[in-house]
Amino acid sequence: MLTEPTLLLDEGKCRANIKRMADKARANKVVFRPHFKTHQSHDVGRWFREYEVSKITVSSLKMAVYFAEDGWDDITVAFPVNVNEKERIHSLAEKISLSLLLVSPDTVEELARVTQHPLGLFIEVDTGYHRTGVDPDNTGLIEEILIQINAHPQFHFGGFLAHDGHSYKLSNGKSKILSIQKDSISIMRKLKARYIKDFPRLVTSLGDTPTCSLSDSFEGLDEIRPGNLVFYDVMQRHLGSCRPDDIAVAMACPVVARYPERSEVVVHGGAVHFSKDFLQLPDGTTHYGQVVWLSPDGWSTEDTGMYLKGMSQEHGIVHAEKENIENIKIGDFLGVLPVHSCLTADVMKSYQTLKGKRISMMR
Amino acid sequence: MLTEPTLLLDEGKCRANIKRMADKARANKVVFRPHFKTHQSHDVGRWFREYEVSKITVSSLKMAVYFAEDGWDDITVAFPVNVNEKERIHSLAEKISLSLLLVSPDTVEELARVTQHPLGLFIEVDTGYHRTGVDPDNTGLIEEILIQINAHPQFHFGGFLAHDGHSYKLSNGKSKILSIQKDSISIMRKLKARYIKDFPRLVTSLGDTPTCSLSDSFEGLDEIRPGNLVFYDVMQRHLGSCRPDDIAVAMACPVVARYPERSEVVVHGGAVHFSKDFLQLPDGTTHYGQVVWLSPDGWSTEDTGMYLKGMSQEHGIVHAEKENIENIKIGDFLGVLPVHSCLTADVMKSYQTLKGKRISMMR
Repeated sequence: MLTEPTLLLDEGKCRANIKRMADKARANKVVFRPHFKTHQSHDVGRWFREYEVSKITVSSLKMAVYFAEDGWDDITVAFPVNVNEKERIHSLAEKISLSLLLVSPDTVEELARVTQHPLGLFIEVDTGYHRTGVDPDNTGLIEEILIQINAHPQFHFGGFLAHDGHSYKLSNGKSKILSIQKDSISIMRKLKARYIKDFPRLVTSLGDTPTCSLSDSFEGLDEIRPGNLVFYDVMQRHLGSCRPDDIAVAMACPVVARYPERSEVVVHGGAVHFSKDFLQLPDGTTHYGQVVWLSPDGWSTEDTGMYLKGMSQEHGIVHAEKENIENIKIGDFLGVLPVHSCLTADVMKSYQTLKGKRISMMR
Repeated sequence: MLTEPTLLLDEGKCRANIKRMADKARANKVVFRPHFKTHQSHDVGRWFREYEVSKITVSSLKMAVYFAEDGWDDITVAFPVNVNEKERIHSLAEKISLSLLLVSPDTVEELARVTQHPLGLFIEVDTGYHRTGVDPDNTGLIEEILIQINAHPQFHFGGFLAHDGHSYKLSNGKSKILSIQKDSISIMRKLKARYIKDFPRLVTSLGDTPTCSLSDSFEGLDEIRPGNLVFYDVMQRHLGSCRPDDIAVAMACPVVARYPERSEVVVHGGAVHFSKDFLQLPDGTTHYGQVVWLSPDGWSTEDTGMYLKGMSQEHGIVHAEKENIENIKIGDFLGVLPVHSCLTADVMKSYQTLKGKRISMMR
């Protein structure tokens, strides 16, 4: 029984998303090391195990601790290392196979003082997103980092890691997304060819859900790290990474006001439920979520023409045509497919499956 | 000792903000019923008690339950009532003096089935924000609601409540903000004059931090409900509601990467720490937070020229000139004054005072 804004999770769709990517990785002989920052949940993590996933990616040391507590023992923190988090690094490195990310040689010396336990160290490579990472042409800097890593026996060089965040531009289209992946793989190949002799265990690892979802080939890579694929969202649908039916989460939001004269209804469902990411569509509209009809077994994905056009802390403003508003009463629940499921899950801190089971998340 | 992104709270600034507004309300003989959605914390709430605040506003029934647990016994939920939350309404109405918000006559009948305990019912009036509320000229609708309220002996009409959310436009300027308040007060006065004979206890209540901070007169009102004033933020500073020195929260963010060639440093501090509100400044720049230097006793508010120009889930991209970057090392902490402190507090779920005390929030 729904009483308040609730993040519904369709376990069937979610498992199908996991299986599809796990199968694709297996067929391509790459390791599927999913990014768990999207779901942040022990329960959802366990579903991955059923598809033979044993290595994971997280975005913070706190999240690594959370998943290590549930038995995950091979974790990459795909975020430039913060050497201030000494205790977490030391205690994780003692217990599990932990890999951290370097973007500079400066931190290695300090890291060596933090722990004597084994640590894998990846070099983050900037393949075009220009957020963090080393310029792949700057082999001088790369080799400076490698020298630093080699100076400490507890460290081993894990390899090269990149995140193609520039695949997330709405204007991309499938061919552009595939060409981004192609360019990045080519960068990774070159780096691998150059350094494999000295580091025979080095791994090339590439992330992001759009390229991994749209591409059927990962030749040249050893590992993929998509995360959002577990739920997908309206953003991914617009990018073409998924079909509407693949989106595995929807917020159930109670209707609290109706304004037919403005073609609007207002729901309890705002920034504290969705976070505040939005899409700017080509027609100029701003879109905070796609509104769907809830049903006893989930939600229908037919296009209702309704969407969240605005939000404040607790209010969500739904654009709806008159014929829809006529069928909506105060107290009804509408479903909203989130624009960015990672951030929505992060603020909600729990899910409810369609069978009514509560699933908790990292706090 | 800071190790990870931490929301610092300057108790002195916070108390000064509370005291200033409490004094102003007292001088103007209006009830100060602060909105607690900004801080969502028992501890911070207790500071208000020291300035003789005994009545509060919240944005959800969940939040009302949380504050009732800490002894608050006069609470208005300033969000259109969601009749699905039967249990919370019933048990709160039994324990405390609870007021709820109506935007339609439809819900009253159902509410009467939910509880036989006394309930105050306010009518939300749309004074120009056009989010929720009844058109104040639609006295037919208002009277329909009043008839519904009168039909149930456990209900009493609380009065008229409005939120001037349209005061939050950056282009406003002080005189525009004051004129918004003037128009709203005039609407409230008219409503009061019309209905006071039948409802001698009716209260007119107006919210929002910009008008309450910038105005020195509330004549015609019985109650003010600002919330953000407890911390203020960069948005309020741009509106002119506060001085830079009044902002009482700053996120301490560790630096994890430096890119002098792009005039950028990257911090651990992204959408999961700040939420994702931003300012679009007149010069076209997008601004997710103002970067300040941390000091042993808090932070300096001098203009560093540094600001958060972008963010993803965990990354914050700081624009910084070369001369600043030269003084920043990986591992240093920078302070970031949030654009929207309500949402930032909501995602962080705890504060740390400058004395190192941890302050918890609603979960």
